[in-house]
Amino acid sequence: MSASRFDVAGIGNAIVDIIARCDEAFLSNHGMEKGFMQLVTASQADDIYADMGPAQEQSGGSAANTCAGIASLGGTCAFIGRVAGDQFGKVFAHDITSVGVAYDTPPADAGLPTARCLVLVTPDGERTMNTFLGASTELGPEDVDGDLIAAAQITYLEGYLFDRPEAKAAFHEAATLARGAERKVALTLSDAFCVDRHRSDFLELVRGGVDILFANENEITSLYELNSFEEAAGAVRAEAEIAVLTRSERGSVVISGNDTFEVPADSVEQVVDVTGAGDLYAAGFLHGLTRSLPLETCARLGSLAAAEVISHIGARPGQDLKELAQNREILT
Amino acid sequence: MSASRFDVAGIGNAIVDIIARCDEAFLSNHGMEKGFMQLVTASQADDIYADMGPAQEQSGGSAANTCAGIASLGGTCAFIGRVAGDQFGKVFAHDITSVGVAYDTPPADAGLPTARCLVLVTPDGERTMNTFLGASTELGPEDVDGDLIAAAQITYLEGYLFDRPEAKAAFHEAATLARGAERKVALTLSDAFCVDRHRSDFLELVRGGVDILFANENEITSLYELNSFEEAAGAVRAEAEIAVLTRSERGSVVISGNDTFEVPADSVEQVVDVTGAGDLYAAGFLHGLTRSLPLETCARLGSLAAAEVISHIGARPGQDLKELAQNREILT
Repeated sequence: MSASRFDVAGIGNAIVDIIARCDEAFLSNHGMEKGFMQLVTASQADDIYADMGPAQEQSGGSAANTCAGIASLGGTCAFIGRVAGDQFGKVFAHDITSVGVAYDTPPADAGLPTARCLVLVTPDGERTMNTFLGASTELGPEDVDGDLIAAAQITYLEGYLFDRPEAKAAFHEAATLARGAERKVALTLSDAFCVDRHRSDFLELVRGGVDILFANENEITSLYELNSFEEAAGAVRAEAEIAVLTRSERGSVVISGNDTFEVPADSVEQVVDVTGAGDLYAAGFLHGLTRSLPLETCARLGSLAAAEVISHIGARPGQDLKELAQNREILT
Repeated sequence: MSASRFDVAGIGNAIVDIIARCDEAFLSNHGMEKGFMQLVTASQADDIYADMGPAQEQSGGSAANTCAGIASLGGTCAFIGRVAGDQFGKVFAHDITSVGVAYDTPPADAGLPTARCLVLVTPDGERTMNTFLGASTELGPEDVDGDLIAAAQITYLEGYLFDRPEAKAAFHEAATLARGAERKVALTLSDAFCVDRHRSDFLELVRGGVDILFANENEITSLYELNSFEEAAGAVRAEAEIAVLTRSERGSVVISGNDTFEVPADSVEQVVDVTGAGDLYAAGFLHGLTRSLPLETCARLGSLAAAEVISHIGARPGQDLKELAQNREILT
């Protein structure tokens, strides 16, 4: 195994978030499940947007947010995901490269516009997402740069990719390349409904192709179709090398062989917008892993990054996470 | 004079702000004058953007921000300004209509993209702006709906319009229509460099066509080419019916005939981003005027709206300003 050029290579949907505040009634009036992501068509997205209040736009996308977090922690990162050659595509490319993430996927030259996610933030800070995948669906196995994957310590994949056959193929291609280069593969299950749509695929990956699994409480119980977190945690222990289970304000649990580490969530003065919480947790954890830190310290880095991102609007870091971690003496 | 359908009709550039934080060195490295607005070409905008950090996009435009503020205060408002049929154009139209501002200017069907303003926010909260006017330059006299102007108590014009001959013609058309319908005309000088570029035009308007003039300290001293605020205030007293002079943290001074009202600025816990401060001050003041409130109360509403907008990123209200004003017992 040669020296790594990148700590992490992330593969996921390249999305611009359109974020607005709303009341609880807005969600029920539009038949949205609070706290979850649903896929919408272009015309559904237009209808929802027309009803939304004034918004702000910020780059998003689950694995892309994680890459931005890793860069903010001082790690080296590359991202693979497709935009169109429109204004939102330029916004996405600008934001991710401006934080130092290598991003070379060429924009789709025709077809659908850049993916957008309509994020509705309720007064409790919870976010409900409606994603139009657009140009993101153009990502295919040919976009997975084998040299890049071989040059990254960890290849990180978002579960949302499974919602499109081509991207799923890209996902498998990347995992195969990474394993061939004796690198690690990490996967996040992304969303409980996403797990529901692709349960057998995910189970196969957890049993075979994935070294580090990220899931929240809803996702891990959905994966094993079990009722309690404890049962699901028991099930994943037998199958995954490292399972990282996040539980919102109850912190996280890291399971590896016979070891279990429970790490509390960092306290936050006010939860403004939980968008990106899981993505930034993963950033902290993965950054710790690439620095060969103990699993418990990795989880503490995850808690720190997640706490920062939920204290403001948007799913990308608002502060220098490395500095925050150094002030807390988690990183040197 | 018939009953008014709108409290205020605003005419200005229709712009999407692209907002990023930067350090002081960024401004000097790019030859930018801190706190001011400069016009840039498409390629200059691209160069600056390439150097900027990760950004967020929010609708802006000076008079458009004022319209959004008036709507948030419970007033009725219409906006005239031109976008292109691109993603930023859709963002602009969505944001302004979603807060209840009437907006019917058809998008330009060819030519330049929607105007954008690269806003650099330094750690002190000060904002430095680089505007590419794009489709905004397509606004012409034919876009000024005479019925709309006649139906608004006050027509409010931003000085930035003078940077383009066609828009300047639209400006004069609107002022003439408003006066013909026995309505009031308000003007903001927008920026000291803008005053420098169009001094004689502005002086003519202050002496002849404008009932309410908004200016900050830099702008009013630039208008009269005088060194002190006090001298400039004396000069404008002799010429304007109502002059509203804002002085950042030192509050504002309203001058009307022999009357002078000094109103302090509202205290703010932390100045995050001063973008929109003047625009929102104008919103509060104009809303008070349309409610026939005393000039001093109008200024207090201005201070309240300005304080809200500088306490967060972006130039549009983040809270319900009517509720804020009611809690403070300025509005009933």
